[in-house]
This record gives sequence, structure tokens and C-alpha cells, in this order.
Amino acid sequence: MARETDNLELTKNPATEEDLEDLALGEDYALNPEYVPMVADALDAGDSERLRDLLSALRPEDVADLMGFLSAKDREELVPHLDPETLGDVLSELDTEIREDVLAHLPSATLAKALEEMDSDDAADVVDDLEDDKRAQVLAAMPEVERAAIETTLAYAEESAGRLMQREVVAAPQFWTVGQTIDHLRRESDELPELFFDVYVVDPSYKPVGAAPVSHLLRSRRDVPLAQIMEQVTEIPVDMDQEEVAYIFNKYNLISAPVVEPGGRLVGQITVDDIVGVIQEESEEDILALAGVSDAGRDATMFGIVRSRLLWLVLNLATEAVAVGAIAFYQDEIAKIVALAVLMPIVSSVGGNAGTQTLAVAVRALASRELNASNALRIFWRELGAGFVNGLIVAIAMGAAVTVFFHNWRLALTVGLALVANIFIAAAGGILVPLALEKMGRDPAVSSAIFITFLTDSMGFFAVLAIAAMILL
Amino acid sequence: MARETDNLELTKNPATEEDLEDLALGEDYALNPEYVPMVADALDAGDSERLRDLLSALRPEDVADLMGFLSAKDREELVPHLDPETLGDVLSELDTEIREDVLAHLPSATLAKALEEMDSDDAADVVDDLEDDKRAQVLAAMPEVERAAIETTLAYAEESAGRLMQREVVAAPQFWTVGQTIDHLRRESDELPELFFDVYVVDPSYKPVGAAPVSHLLRSRRDVPLAQIMEQVTEIPVDMDQEEVAYIFNKYNLISAPVVEPGGRLVGQITVDDIVGVIQEESEEDILALAGVSDAGRDATMFGIVRSRLLWLVLNLATEAVAVGAIAFYQDEIAKIVALAVLMPIVSSVGGNAGTQTLAVAVRALASRELNASNALRIFWRELGAGFVNGLIVAIAMGAAVTVFFHNWRLALTVGLALVANIFIAAAGGILVPLALEKMGRDPAVSSAIFITFLTDSMGFFAVLAIAAMILL
Repeated sequence: MARETDNLELTKNPATEEDLEDLALGEDYALNPEYVPMVADALDAGDSERLRDLLSALRPEDVADLMGFLSAKDREELVPHLDPETLGDVLSELDTEIREDVLAHLPSATLAKALEEMDSDDAADVVDDLEDDKRAQVLAAMPEVERAAIETTLAYAEESAGRLMQREVVAAPQFWTVGQTIDHLRRESDELPELFFDVYVVDPSYKPVGAAPVSHLLRSRRDVPLAQIMEQVTEIPVDMDQEEVAYIFNKYNLISAPVVEPGGRLVGQITVDDIVGVIQEESEEDILALAGVSDAGRDATMFGIVRSRLLWLVLNLATEAVAVGAIAFYQDEIAKIVALAVLMPIVSSVGGNAGTQTLAVAVRALASRELNASNALRIFWRELGAGFVNGLIVAIAMGAAVTVFFHNWRLALTVGLALVANIFIAAAGGILVPLALEKMGRDPAVSSAIFITFLTDSMGFFAVLAIAAMILL
Repeated sequence: MARETDNLELTKNPATEEDLEDLALGEDYALNPEYVPMVADALDAGDSERLRDLLSALRPEDVADLMGFLSAKDREELVPHLDPETLGDVLSELDTEIREDVLAHLPSATLAKALEEMDSDDAADVVDDLEDDKRAQVLAAMPEVERAAIETTLAYAEESAGRLMQREVVAAPQFWTVGQTIDHLRRESDELPELFFDVYVVDPSYKPVGAAPVSHLLRSRRDVPLAQIMEQVTEIPVDMDQEEVAYIFNKYNLISAPVVEPGGRLVGQITVDDIVGVIQEESEEDILALAGVSDAGRDATMFGIVRSRLLWLVLNLATEAVAVGAIAFYQDEIAKIVALAVLMPIVSSVGGNAGTQTLAVAVRALASRELNASNALRIFWRELGAGFVNGLIVAIAMGAAVTVFFHNWRLALTVGLALVANIFIAAAGGILVPLALEKMGRDPAVSSAIFITFLTDSMGFFAVLAIAAMILL
């Protein structure tokens, strides 16, 4: 009997479907690059049947992935082939730029239907991307309850727990038993969130006092009181920043957590699948910020890219101009010993890299809360020590090479001393600058790199020339 | 009745305990820096009662966090105050270096007891960190079943799905109903994993054919067959790399997934809480690799840090030495126009930063599978276009500045042209180098930066001097 039900769910031609799935996705479930032109060809040929077959091998997440590889025109033609539920799931998975583009071409009525199928947090996320006019149209086309849920979510600050949370939660009073809870869940099945992992146990004022994991409910006898199987809850304030929420989930290995208002009342829940996205996003932001890229999705236009990178390049140009001021100041020395011009950039470059190393470690440690006031001093001394040792080793190597090539031990000494000084200063700056920015409430990933580059470039030039002026000329 | 049970679980003096908790953790649940010296003082004073109070405000994850801030001596003194279950939880949360240090000082019998309390994947992780001698002793002190589970896990490759998975799973035949499944779970309660999120539905050869989320089990009537509420499963091959596993979890928003042997037989499960750690780890590795740091935890010694950074600095020194070869070749030009020595490093530095920008974007896009053969060409042209435009803008700014300061439009033209060329080449290299490394099966985050730095530094010097030789002299 169960077997028949199972078979009914398969299509008439399972072999072909499985073949298509193997063609669509690699063993690691990444989209095969060859599948993209196949879909594009079906779209260009207007072959709806072929397209339906190709799409049937994909889950909504794969369709979202596919759309990232299609041209804007193909994407627009693909959307009408998706049913409202799939469209909703696809929309919540799309990259921002692509989503904005798709939304701009989507009829308000179609979008309203898709939004009804989504969880309130995902729906709000999509509505937030709409232009004002369209937003009003779409919200007007939605049923009262769903519209209110979306509007409430959008009232919370961007990147706050209130935006991340689902308003749909399962709560039970603390005097219920396992049996009462299960009966309630069966009765209210239609009203429950699609998936949930904890039943929050609440007191009469709706404050969470514990969480009963669903696996504990399933394995316990019906007469066991909830209070006996519930575990400690980790409450998330509704206005907490998403980066802090992600830290808490990661630290305590949480699957879900209740979100509470300032008074302590339960208003929603955050589940770990939303947090995985946040962690990915935040660490990508750090990588890009350290490299001086303000933001760039896969579908940015060429001018979007230009914009996202130009600021850093211009700042870099300006700080370099100041740094080379040191060189201009010592032009006479360079004219006398051209080798200085050859060797200075090495000192700057190696110092810059030493600074970047310390900076990356410090930014990472600050983000994971592994660096704070209680160990900052110890880590600072350790970095200084390591910077000094590394500086010494690299300086000896460079000094030896300079002695061999230029037959001038004073020049070797000049460059070696400058290198030790620059790597030492790079280590100090690499740890102090992000600590100071964090203390000032700024994101240390965003602005540290420009300081460090400036510091090590100017020190590189200045140290070589100043030491040369003292011992070489 | 429930209320009483609830009260029984609180301590006699809840006010003090709550105060301590507020003192221990910030609103974001990060450890307060001030709490660390309080614990250290209690340890130094040998005040066990005070220490017990201080520790009672902390969960195992907080204790692990605390240990990262304590000195090695304090850490060693803290361990005997933890019961076996807490010790097990703490061990699975500790950073590698700290864990190795703690394990080295832990009696084998104590460790064996803590390991028995842990899930097989976490226990194996700890055993893997032991020296060979101690490993044999500890395993010999453990019961047969737990030892076998650990040894089986350790037989899988490092960073594979087999290492990540728990061997404890809940499986049910596809002909069972919801009621039969719940009865089974209640009967077998002691044998089940501590937490689970899906019951895997298996065929007679123990291959997963679907997954019934526990929340679906709870909300469905007892007579509903499992086959009716089960959902599609995403199988993870036991030998898959953890980075690919993390990609799959992130893509499909999975909470748990069955792990299968090559024949398709169910051998374990991976849950999302393990994956959150992997995602964090992999992105930290990328940040550090791009900055040229091979590895460094919070508790690395100073010489550990020296080692983790020296290779990159020495490589950087070597490539710079080659790059400045271009300068040495044109020494006569520099002696004539010292301004070239002043301006060259700017061209190198800005080019290097442009290369780093493109590189960071490309590495991130490759890691998230947003860049593959189907869009590589399009993204390559877009990067080239953006590189050209950015180069032009920055070159005009620099050319204007040079004209103002040096009153020499030929010099301005030289530097401007060199800057356009270098930023253009940086963009090309920033995308081509990681693509090529990925194609060769290498990690693009690890070795790309050194290539790009070399490329832009040598081009920066060479372009300025070669163009100067043509139009300036």
C-alpha cells in the first residue's frame, strides 16, 4: 500500500527524468555549465515542452542558480513558465541584482500570488526590493493577513533579528503535557509553519521559559509534562544585528531560537537555515571589504563594478601620493644612488604584505569574538614579537642578496634595517588599527586596509631614505 | 504541577545566579572581557566554591570560549572542575591548538569518560588530536561499542562527509505509518541521537528513499503512511569533501541530510550545526589565504605565527626582486629623471590593489559556484571593461596631478598610460589566474595573490620605464 503511494508520486518516465537530473547537476549538486545553454536554446526556440522537461529536473534553488547564469532576456522569458509556489521559492533564493531585475518585469498580480506562498520573512525581503509604486500595487493585491505580516516585518531595521525572523511560531503553555501538545499540533496543522524544530514553552504573559525540541516530543510518553523535557532557551532581542544573531547561533550550535520584544514577549523565531545565509554573507563582505571592493554581485553591470571599486583605487592613489612625498623629499640621494630607487619598492611591498597578514588575522579574530580587551595586550605583544623575528629573517635574506648584487654592505645594511623597521611597524599597525576602529564602533574590515597600505608604503620609502641619508651618504 | 517541576530546576538563589549570568555574558552572548580575570583570580586563589559559582553561569560553549582567553596554566587548573559531560562538550568546542594543549595534560581515564558522553563525530575529532601513545591508552579505556564507532569514523579521510557525520540516525521502513514510527521512537528512546530533525525512510536494502521532517510527523494523524509525508532527500556521498557538503546545505537550506556509502546504503547523517562550523572555517581559510597567512589560531605561539607568515613574505621578497629587475635594467633613465622613481611605486601599488579587488571577487564567486565555464567569458569581458574604465579615470586624475606638480605633460602622459596598462592587466590577471588554478584543481585562494602581486608590481615598473624610454627620453 505504501509502496503504491510511493510509485504514484513518480512520473511516468522515471528513467528520462533521472537522466536529466544527472545532466543538470554535478555530484556536488552544483549546476552543470552545459545545462545553461540547453535551457537558453529551449527558450530561444520557444519550445515549452522541452523547457518543462528541463525545468522538471531542477529544484527551485537550482532554478534560482540557473537564472544567475542566463542573460536578462532569457531570464524574463523563463519566469512565466514557473508556477506561483516555485516562483516564490525562486525569488527568495535569487541574488539581489537579479531579483530586482526580475521583479521589475513581473506583473503585480503574479507577484502577489507568489508572495502569498512564502514565509513572512522571505516575502518581506522581496517586497523590500520593490519600487515604491509597485510595492503599493502588490500589497494592495494581497489578502489582509499576509499584507499585515509583511508590513510588520518591514517596520524592523534592515539586517536586524526582526527582519530575519518568521512570525509563525509554535508555542505551548508550560502546564501542557506532550500528549496535549501533539493533539494541538494535529488540530492546528494548517496554521503551523511549514517546518519547525522547537515548541516554545511560554508563561501566561507569552514570555518563553524553555524550548521543547520536536525530537524530544516525539520520543517522550504522552503524559510527560513539557516542563520536564524543555531545554534552556537562548532569546534573541528583536532589534539585534544579524551579525550578532549569527554569532550566537554559531556559538551555541542552535537550530532555532525565539525572538522577543523588549518586554520579553515572544514575537517570532529565527531558524538556522536563515543564519547559514547570513554567515556566508557576512564573511563575503569581510573578504571583499579587506580587498577594497564595496559590493558586487554576479549580475552587476560593468559600471556597477567600476563604481564598487573606484573609491578604493582613488583613495589608494591619494595615499600613495602622500607616501611618495618622502621620496620627493630625498630626490638628491636617489640621483646619487639609483640603487635606492630599485630597492625601496621591495621594502614597501614586503612591509605591506606583512601588514595585510596581521590585519586579516585581527579582523577575523574580532569577527569571531576571539580578540577582546582581556587578551588584546597579549596578542599585541605576540604580533610585535613575530613581526620583529620575521623582519629580521627577511632582512638578512635581502641584505645578503644586496651584498651579492651591489657589492655594497652599507647599502645592504640600509635596506635590511629599513625592512626590519617596516615589518615591525606593519605588525603594530595591523593589530592596532582594527582594534581602534572596533573601539570606535566602525567595521574594522572596511577601513583598515587603506590605513595599513598607507602606513607601510610611506614607512617603506621613508625608512630606506632616512637610513640612507644617515649611514650611506 | 508543571510550575513546581519548573521551580525545582532553578537553584536556591536565582537572583544571584542571574546576576552572575549578566556579568558573564554580554547581550550578544559574547563573554565579557571582565569575567576572564575574575575566573583567573578564583583559580589562583584556589577558591573552589567561588569558581563553581562563576562556572555555573556559563554553558559549555562559554567555558570553551573562556579557556581561549585564559593562560595555559589557568586552563590546566580549570579542567578538574568540569564534570565528564561538560568536559566532553567543552572539548568539542575548543580551538585546535588549545585542545591539543588541554588533551596533553588530561589523564587518559578522565578523557575516556568524557568521550563516552559525546556524539561519535565529535569524539572522533578529539581522538584524532591525540598523540599515538595516548590515543591507544584512551581507546583501550573505552567500552567496545564507542571505541568501534570512533575508529570507523577515523577511517574516513579528513574533511570528508564521513568525518562530519554522526553514525546515529533514525530510519524507518517506507510501509510504516506515523503512529508506528512514533511508537518505535518512544520504545527506542535511549538508543536515539540526542537531537534529530528527520526520520529517514529507507527501502529494504537500507537506501534512503525520502525524509520525514519531525515537525511533519508531529502534525500528522497516526494512520498517515510515512510515504505520504516524506520529502525528497539530498544524499551526501560519504567521501565528499566538507566544502562541497557545506555548499549543498547552504544551497538547499538543509537542516540534516543522510550520508550514503558508494552502494547507496545509509551510514549516517550530517546536521546543519556541524555545517555552520565548516562554512565559518572555510571562509576564514579563504580570508587568511588571500592575505598570505597559512594558518594561525588564537593560541598559536609567537613562533607558530612566524612560521605561518614567513613563507609568503619570503616569496614576496623573491618576486619583488624579479620585478625590480625591470628598474635595474633602466637605471640610466632613472638617473636622468628622478621623478620616475617617485612615480613608479604609485603605478605598482594602485595596479596591485586593482588586481586584489578582482581576485577577491573571483575567489568568492568560485567558492560559491557563481562563476563557472558557462559565464566565465562574460565575466572576463566585464572585468576587462571595468578595469579599462577604472584605469582611465585614475590615470586622468594622476596625470593631472603630475602636470601640476612636475609641469611636464610628457611625464604625465607616461605615468597615465602606464597606469591604464597596469590596471587593465591587473583586471585580466585577477580573473584569469584564479580560473586557471581552479581548472588545475588547486585552491584559487591560496596561490593567486602571489601571482597577482608579482604581475602588477613588475608591470608597474616595466610599463613606466618602457613608456618613458619611448616618449620621454
